[in-house]
Amino acid sequence: MSMNGAQSLVTTLVDCGVDVCFTNPGTSEMHFVAALDMEDRMRCVLGLFEGVVTGAADGYARMAGKPACTLLHLGPGLGNGLANLHNARRAFSPMVNVVGEHATYHRALDAPLTSDIEGIAAPVSGWVKVSEQPQQVAADGAAAVQAAWGPPGRIATLILPADTAWEGPAEPAPALAIPSAPAVPDASVEQAISALRSGELCAFLISGNGTTQRGLNLIDQITRATGARVFADTFVPHIAGGVGVPAVARLPYFAEQAEEALAGVRHLILVDTKAPVSFFAYPGRASELTPEGAKVVQLSHIGDDSLPALEALLDAVGTPEGTALQAERPRLATGDLTPGAVAQSLAALLPEQAVLVNESATSGGALPGFLAASPQHEMLNLTGGAIGMGLPAALGAAVATPGRRTVALQADGSAMYTIQALWSIAREGLDVTTIIFANRKYAILQMEFMRVGAQNPGPKAMDMLDLSRPDLNFVDLAKGMGMPGMQARDAASFNAALAESFATPGPYLIEALV
Amino acid sequence: MSMNGAQSLVTTLVDCGVDVCFTNPGTSEMHFVAALDMEDRMRCVLGLFEGVVTGAADGYARMAGKPACTLLHLGPGLGNGLANLHNARRAFSPMVNVVGEHATYHRALDAPLTSDIEGIAAPVSGWVKVSEQPQQVAADGAAAVQAAWGPPGRIATLILPADTAWEGPAEPAPALAIPSAPAVPDASVEQAISALRSGELCAFLISGNGTTQRGLNLIDQITRATGARVFADTFVPHIAGGVGVPAVARLPYFAEQAEEALAGVRHLILVDTKAPVSFFAYPGRASELTPEGAKVVQLSHIGDDSLPALEALLDAVGTPEGTALQAERPRLATGDLTPGAVAQSLAALLPEQAVLVNESATSGGALPGFLAASPQHEMLNLTGGAIGMGLPAALGAAVATPGRRTVALQADGSAMYTIQALWSIAREGLDVTTIIFANRKYAILQMEFMRVGAQNPGPKAMDMLDLSRPDLNFVDLAKGMGMPGMQARDAASFNAALAESFATPGPYLIEALV
Repeated sequence: MSMNGAQSLVTTLVDCGVDVCFTNPGTSEMHFVAALDMEDRMRCVLGLFEGVVTGAADGYARMAGKPACTLLHLGPGLGNGLANLHNARRAFSPMVNVVGEHATYHRALDAPLTSDIEGIAAPVSGWVKVSEQPQQVAADGAAAVQAAWGPPGRIATLILPADTAWEGPAEPAPALAIPSAPAVPDASVEQAISALRSGELCAFLISGNGTTQRGLNLIDQITRATGARVFADTFVPHIAGGVGVPAVARLPYFAEQAEEALAGVRHLILVDTKAPVSFFAYPGRASELTPEGAKVVQLSHIGDDSLPALEALLDAVGTPEGTALQAERPRLATGDLTPGAVAQSLAALLPEQAVLVNESATSGGALPGFLAASPQHEMLNLTGGAIGMGLPAALGAAVATPGRRTVALQADGSAMYTIQALWSIAREGLDVTTIIFANRKYAILQMEFMRVGAQNPGPKAMDMLDLSRPDLNFVDLAKGMGMPGMQARDAASFNAALAESFATPGPYLIEALV
Repeated sequence: MSMNGAQSLVTTLVDCGVDVCFTNPGTSEMHFVAALDMEDRMRCVLGLFEGVVTGAADGYARMAGKPACTLLHLGPGLGNGLANLHNARRAFSPMVNVVGEHATYHRALDAPLTSDIEGIAAPVSGWVKVSEQPQQVAADGAAAVQAAWGPPGRIATLILPADTAWEGPAEPAPALAIPSAPAVPDASVEQAISALRSGELCAFLISGNGTTQRGLNLIDQITRATGARVFADTFVPHIAGGVGVPAVARLPYFAEQAEEALAGVRHLILVDTKAPVSFFAYPGRASELTPEGAKVVQLSHIGDDSLPALEALLDAVGTPEGTALQAERPRLATGDLTPGAVAQSLAALLPEQAVLVNESATSGGALPGFLAASPQHEMLNLTGGAIGMGLPAALGAAVATPGRRTVALQADGSAMYTIQALWSIAREGLDVTTIIFANRKYAILQMEFMRVGAQNPGPKAMDMLDLSRPDLNFVDLAKGMGMPGMQARDAASFNAALAESFATPGPYLIEALV
């Protein structure tokens, strides 16, 4: 039987290794939906909102190490997914968006759903193409997958007019070669070695390969051998942690604390990241965080094959004696339920090889300290500052890691941007434990309001930074989407609920009133 | 005391008549928030998600007849609001977006939240400007308000770098003149008169002024005098209805039904709209709906001063005898709770001057028939096909119409896109009754899947068009956001809940299991 364009595209995507589709389709995507239905090798996960779809594809890519595809409904559907595409772009997550479009001959008529899809896609995409012909769409799909891989990973957006999908005959296209990661130039390695041997204070700022278990172990040895400091990017997309993985501090979020952390550094060695800048500008404060006069050594860029470079550094500086200190696993917290108590009990109970999706915002400060002494795990973080990434990314991460427990560490304000993710997690029966840090305010904004030098806030301003009146109840919200949950008001009830969730397959939500 | 840029902007907006701000701010907007706090004349309404914010500004504009402003957080915040900006653009709603941006000197550093805000804004905006100077921002704000007014109404997006907001001194700018609506050329009126006198079948397709109470009365008389047909745009932004307002059919959604409705028409007279095209393209079916050979008479464009032109038409064709037929007010429905029963009981109980916000999708077919005999009301409809407009628009419409009851008629699938609006409605204590038509599927897509000629759906495709497994429970969702509600399974319980809600100030949600 001959294929139509949609069928040729779906087969090609799967042949290229893209076998999960996060989807929120509309009429113009019905032939693609039919084609998904015919391809047994493609798993489909429905989201009730496109921000869930794109955030899930991001979380999936970070854990699976390969792209998923999304299916989005024209410009508005893409627009709804834009914030989490922004985060995915900042995480260098590979992703293939398939965005439905009106039939080619229908576009010029300016029907109600018509919009400039390429224009909407461009700011978040590293690759955009409209597939004008059913005979071309399979090759375009293969090119999209290739583009998504990078390196570094990118958002590839393939716009699929409805008649490109429904017309035929069309044939699948072969997978294209994925470029391998560029080697780090010897000169960069030499520069880093010189810095480490200079006798002046060096600091590593790391992301990408540098925050994998292997990277962290290499950098830990290098820094112990040389006295260099090390910081992970404040918004590192993915970081390994737990017993056997050297703990590494993240560069602090607030500019003045970051400046303090880097004070005295003369050589800043960048591994898979770029020179640090403050997240926001503040009146009277510098935006660039590299200490004045310090030399920046760009050892590697994101997407580079940087682990051999780190090995070369270690060879040059020599393996240190001893091993990194290892803290004792925390016990369960008792008493009041504070953000710190949540972190402590989480570390006490965390199962092996858990996946932590961290959008805890101001409530997450105690997590790294406690988690360093918990079983090995991986943590995904908010990269682009577009809140609403956590629950969708937990959905996608859980799809990518069957048999492991995913824990969503979620601020309440941020949770509300993409709360619909709970339904997809429930529908898929995923092993996701969601912990809502419910402080009932945009706490970060109450801090920032003061920090930016705005006047003392009156009641109207505070109302805009406050989530009470009425209080949100996340257990009711979860229940409304078919997910069980409970509210925890003290450490004891939190501990019991967390232990129960970790022991029970499927999803659960704990609203931690902190 | 001298003002900073933010203060000069807020004062200018209020001086220009923009005195409601729907907001979801972030750090880069803190000085604007502080300025809002200092301006007593500006009402601020917090949304927990930007799609709520922009949809509310749309609903507000349609009912208040003037723009609100929004406050959005950089590119991702704007992106989250994009779908409802698309709808607002299609509704020709005036709106001023204030989008925070990094400080001017911070933009080049590519901090995590940096994105191409102008690029994201352009596809939905009729006017975009970055305000680079605190001394310029007030004048830019006045220009944005002017641009928003049109005519026709437009989305004006003012991008506000943080240092433009916090630096000074700055002064408010005077309001700019709002251009008046262009008169309809005599030639267009003559052309329409000729068509009406031709003896050939004429049809009006109307929107804008044509669907106000005055416009509907004029067109009703013209059509009764001439035998012309009349249809409102399928996705008319605003339409008056009820006793004393001539009922008018909307052009059917599905192309084949629209073709049938227009069959035989030789002259298509367009009032504040353009020639009809099908919402989507379908294989083997024409996209343009004007009957072959029919002449299109563009009486007026949206934004024109079109009521005098309709008066001239009526003068020319002569006032008909008699009055329009008026149906009897429906009684309460009994028995099973069907979409038709919901419409019937709604019409039976509707209070005077209610505002109906209609995103009922496939469940709304019976509404126009029953509502024609209910008390006078106004109805807002989904214009751009980007679902998730209903609950936010109900929020905004209710803010614009204190003392009146707003009724959100809401499909379940669409409701989930912007469900966060319930919290803002609850927080503001607005008189909004939300009726969820819970059929637990994307019913329109199940129809469209068949209509586009896709293969018989398998279970995987059906799963993507289905909202069950698990069932959503909107009463729990409402409760989680501080809004009371109940589930209705038969007409009797629905009637009781609806009557109770209409008699009780404040919001209420009824999940109608239809």
